[in-house]
Amino acid sequence: MHVRSAHRSLLVVGSVALDDIDGPFGLHRDLLGGSASFIARAAAYFTRNVAVVGVIGDDFPQRHVDEMVGLGVDVSGIGRTPGETFHWVGRYAPDLATRETLDTRLGVFAQFQPKLNDAHRDAQLVLLGNIDPALQLDVLRQVRAPSLVAADTMNLWIDIKRDELCRTLARVHTLMINDEEARQLAEEHNLRRAAAKILKMGPTSLIIKRGDAGALLFHGGGAFAAPAMPLAEVVDPTGAGDSFAGGLMGYLAYAGDLSPSTIRTAMIMGSVMGSFAVEKFSVDGLRGLTTAQIQQRFDDFAELAHFERVRL
Amino acid sequence: MHVRSAHRSLLVVGSVALDDIDGPFGLHRDLLGGSASFIARAAAYFTRNVAVVGVIGDDFPQRHVDEMVGLGVDVSGIGRTPGETFHWVGRYAPDLATRETLDTRLGVFAQFQPKLNDAHRDAQLVLLGNIDPALQLDVLRQVRAPSLVAADTMNLWIDIKRDELCRTLARVHTLMINDEEARQLAEEHNLRRAAAKILKMGPTSLIIKRGDAGALLFHGGGAFAAPAMPLAEVVDPTGAGDSFAGGLMGYLAYAGDLSPSTIRTAMIMGSVMGSFAVEKFSVDGLRGLTTAQIQQRFDDFAELAHFERVRL
Repeated sequence: MHVRSAHRSLLVVGSVALDDIDGPFGLHRDLLGGSASFIARAAAYFTRNVAVVGVIGDDFPQRHVDEMVGLGVDVSGIGRTPGETFHWVGRYAPDLATRETLDTRLGVFAQFQPKLNDAHRDAQLVLLGNIDPALQLDVLRQVRAPSLVAADTMNLWIDIKRDELCRTLARVHTLMINDEEARQLAEEHNLRRAAAKILKMGPTSLIIKRGDAGALLFHGGGAFAAPAMPLAEVVDPTGAGDSFAGGLMGYLAYAGDLSPSTIRTAMIMGSVMGSFAVEKFSVDGLRGLTTAQIQQRFDDFAELAHFERVRL
Repeated sequence: MHVRSAHRSLLVVGSVALDDIDGPFGLHRDLLGGSASFIARAAAYFTRNVAVVGVIGDDFPQRHVDEMVGLGVDVSGIGRTPGETFHWVGRYAPDLATRETLDTRLGVFAQFQPKLNDAHRDAQLVLLGNIDPALQLDVLRQVRAPSLVAADTMNLWIDIKRDELCRTLARVHTLMINDEEARQLAEEHNLRRAAAKILKMGPTSLIIKRGDAGALLFHGGGAFAAPAMPLAEVVDPTGAGDSFAGGLMGYLAYAGDLSPSTIRTAMIMGSVMGSFAVEKFSVDGLRGLTTAQIQQRFDDFAELAHFERVRL
């Protein structure tokens, strides 16, 4: 893998957070979390041209920022302001299949106003993490001519900011959400019909993340199903979807084209990074991976999905 | 497709039933149902060498039997005895994602004792539908030297007849169950670890049916994930798993070998038949299909699952 700065640039706007996570493996406090933390780390395996725009409070450990710098990530867009860092407290069920939010302390994130510098405005790929759709739209007004804008959102915004979200969606190429969010956004249970409705709202492609059921891509050219790797060790599902998005966008920056074939491969690279992420707590599963390990996991996915084409 | 009698023979032992099904599309009474009804119809597209052993009451419409004869199915093992045919009454939730059983009238099925004639005993492939594991074992005592024995089971038998089920599993090559049954049988939530435990109970391969999340194969050679086709029209999920099993076993009889590669392709053929089945009520989705339609749906699955293998 030739990780070089000549790759297309990827701008990530999202949360940088600290998480307290309870569950079958006990309570873990002050874990590094937030969508941008997972996205940037997953993407950095594919390209040195990643920039993060976010906000942290004065309680945020500098070592997490330094680590990103060490990975080649441009952190000039991460502002440190007085106050507490965004803090999420959640608890997973014993089988890790569901979780509940116990507390959300927005802290400095409540006043987050993404400000892009000149280099950020020229980003070719933009990934909008799950933030207020009004802020997502604000970012899209600042970037100049991105070739791909991808975005995530959540049930809260679909519920209380549908109008703003629809305005954002009109300018988003690729929407990445989970199946319940897709159903809620489209007001339609059937995923194929929900996808058709969402593709009329603006995006040219829709990626539906389904956890251990894999991910589906719907676009003009049809559908693609990326399988999920059945893993023997799942420790912490937090950040799986963001790691998926980071791997996907990082691979697109690395590959340098946006063909349907490349997007399919990118979804598998996203699945690879998601599968590494859930095997350990926080971003630990994304730490210290080698190209050989990533290639091996990709090959495992290829083997998992392979079957012979036959003629009856 | 050359459907000919020289294919390996497939013996299906299971229920033949009448179903009353309520749900978002209204109440439908006296629909043809039962595992063997779906299995035999799906398999008959691939081989003329299918035999069914089951039992019906004197209320069972002869036209359903005649239809099977017209498809080349050997119905000499379907006994008609005085009394009511097995009758299942169920209701689907508005989104078709869950169902509840309102009534189960076993009728003549309560006294079902599978009796195999000489031709049946020579079957090369045996598919044991979801019946009492003691009866499944009784069938396995009657067959001579099948090259493949596949079986289904359900939560009820795992609950109340675990010992009998374990004795049956020791003689089954391929177990096909859904994810909740796999978790219950293995007493383990993680599917990969559950599979490893079940493969120690006897089967050399385990197929976990996951509805709209596809199906997983676990065997000594690793894992395979068959995707589910995201369908715009799903009318009646009843029989999807049995249609999957019928397509899979029918294709194995047609292909004439049991290599890992053929089993993967057979799982896709099973997924093809399951996808047709859910598009209409009862066995209607399995009626009147052409080889071209089956091939087209198979090609759609190939397109759904395809991605380029790359080197980083």
